[in-house]
Amino acid sequence: MLMILCVSDNKHKIGARSTGGNKPPALLLPPMCGRQLGRVEELLLPAELVEVTQASPNILRSTLQSLLRYSNIDPNQFVPSQPPPPRMPVTYAAQNESEEEKQFRRVFQQIAGDDMEVSPNELMNILNRIIAKHHDLKTDGFSIESCRSMVAVMDSDSTGKLGFHEFKHLWDNIKRWQAMYKAHDSDHSGVIGANELPEAFRAAGFPLSGQLYQMIIRRYSDESGNMDFDNYIGCLVRLDAMCRAFKTLDKDNNGTIKVNVQEWLQLTMYS
Amino acid sequence: MLMILCVSDNKHKIGARSTGGNKPPALLLPPMCGRQLGRVEELLLPAELVEVTQASPNILRSTLQSLLRYSNIDPNQFVPSQPPPPRMPVTYAAQNESEEEKQFRRVFQQIAGDDMEVSPNELMNILNRIIAKHHDLKTDGFSIESCRSMVAVMDSDSTGKLGFHEFKHLWDNIKRWQAMYKAHDSDHSGVIGANELPEAFRAAGFPLSGQLYQMIIRRYSDESGNMDFDNYIGCLVRLDAMCRAFKTLDKDNNGTIKVNVQEWLQLTMYS
Repeated sequence: MLMILCVSDNKHKIGARSTGGNKPPALLLPPMCGRQLGRVEELLLPAELVEVTQASPNILRSTLQSLLRYSNIDPNQFVPSQPPPPRMPVTYAAQNESEEEKQFRRVFQQIAGDDMEVSPNELMNILNRIIAKHHDLKTDGFSIESCRSMVAVMDSDSTGKLGFHEFKHLWDNIKRWQAMYKAHDSDHSGVIGANELPEAFRAAGFPLSGQLYQMIIRRYSDESGNMDFDNYIGCLVRLDAMCRAFKTLDKDNNGTIKVNVQEWLQLTMYS
Repeated sequence: MLMILCVSDNKHKIGARSTGGNKPPALLLPPMCGRQLGRVEELLLPAELVEVTQASPNILRSTLQSLLRYSNIDPNQFVPSQPPPPRMPVTYAAQNESEEEKQFRRVFQQIAGDDMEVSPNELMNILNRIIAKHHDLKTDGFSIESCRSMVAVMDSDSTGKLGFHEFKHLWDNIKRWQAMYKAHDSDHSGVIGANELPEAFRAAGFPLSGQLYQMIIRRYSDESGNMDFDNYIGCLVRLDAMCRAFKTLDKDNNGTIKVNVQEWLQLTMYS
């Protein structure tokens, strides 16, 4: 069956489609785990095979063009952030912190409260308080589910909450990615459109394939392909952690990793 | 450093702790990906090494006991549900469906609307409408984030929504797991407590290690270790998909899988 990549203008669908009418899309391998495991080569299509339906607006055309531009994926090009440093005794930390860290510690103490750890609820409250002041960022607020997921992927020491360095690491990333969000929201809509997303993610250190960008849009963007601020941050926090995990596990740098079931479930369920 | 497993009664903490005071917990490997990658062997501790703090209530003691009972993990014992069958042409389906499927198709049509696919929003609405009638299930409702995640792991054909078979598969699982939730809520609290969880998950087909149960409680339960209905379903939908993925990828059944970066990101980000 001839495969084409077709951006459909049916509401809610930006995805890979086959030419086969009622047949299942050829991109699909046999059902494996409740999702497709297509290979990137299947998306390396000559431009003339690309069909954009007559009714597609220009924005869909440009989305398709920007997705097709990225058809290779090389984990060596990923630039995930460094993991937070291991926890230090408080007395050691107090003597060796920079002025910026000391200032941040005072803010942290207010957010974390007596136990000196930031819970998913505390993270949600501070994020929502801050984004309420940024009227150029569209968002329906960070949900507790999204904050639990962010805490899990940042929780190096398995306390279920974020200590000072874990929280500072997350905070610094959010600040950096927020600046990129604003810089790549070229139409000032307050969201990252499907056509703006690949460049924004490349700038954040994640040059993915067109197929992965499509998948990310399907999962984290709304039905028109727009990603709001809370989904953008939730997505990047997870992507950063998963790229870092891959690079760390790929010890001989051969582009594949080997994991046992315990590692697999720890990585996929605690996220 | 001697490792002990200590269930602390500090609020919000049920986790692995070291005896080392301010030193980082010995369970931690060097920071890898923003979370620990401990090995199950590290939790195979003689019972006398287990310290339960004086102040721990009985419930924490029994939690610890029920977690310690499960220290082995064998993917051959997982019984994930079968993946949904591939999409068939509507005319073929209409001729070959069982009576039960035909009845379910009528319900599906009402939920899915004109496009005949269930979106995350449609899933959230129907789930919340139904659980509102079950007063013995404690829940704060299914969030859109949780429904997006469930749709992603069930979305075999990458449309971003659930077709008839994908939705029916999810629905049948939810019904089955709901019955197990009620059966294992032995104190009729409306939630699955940390001490009830291992048996409930074993009954659902997922005999995990004590360490993995702890991790699941940390991620999906509240700060007292109780898992409400929406978190329980969200957790099992993901666990089912991840166990199925592992078993499918472990072709030679040797307990490890090898994935490339494209597969890794598809599996971990589209979930």
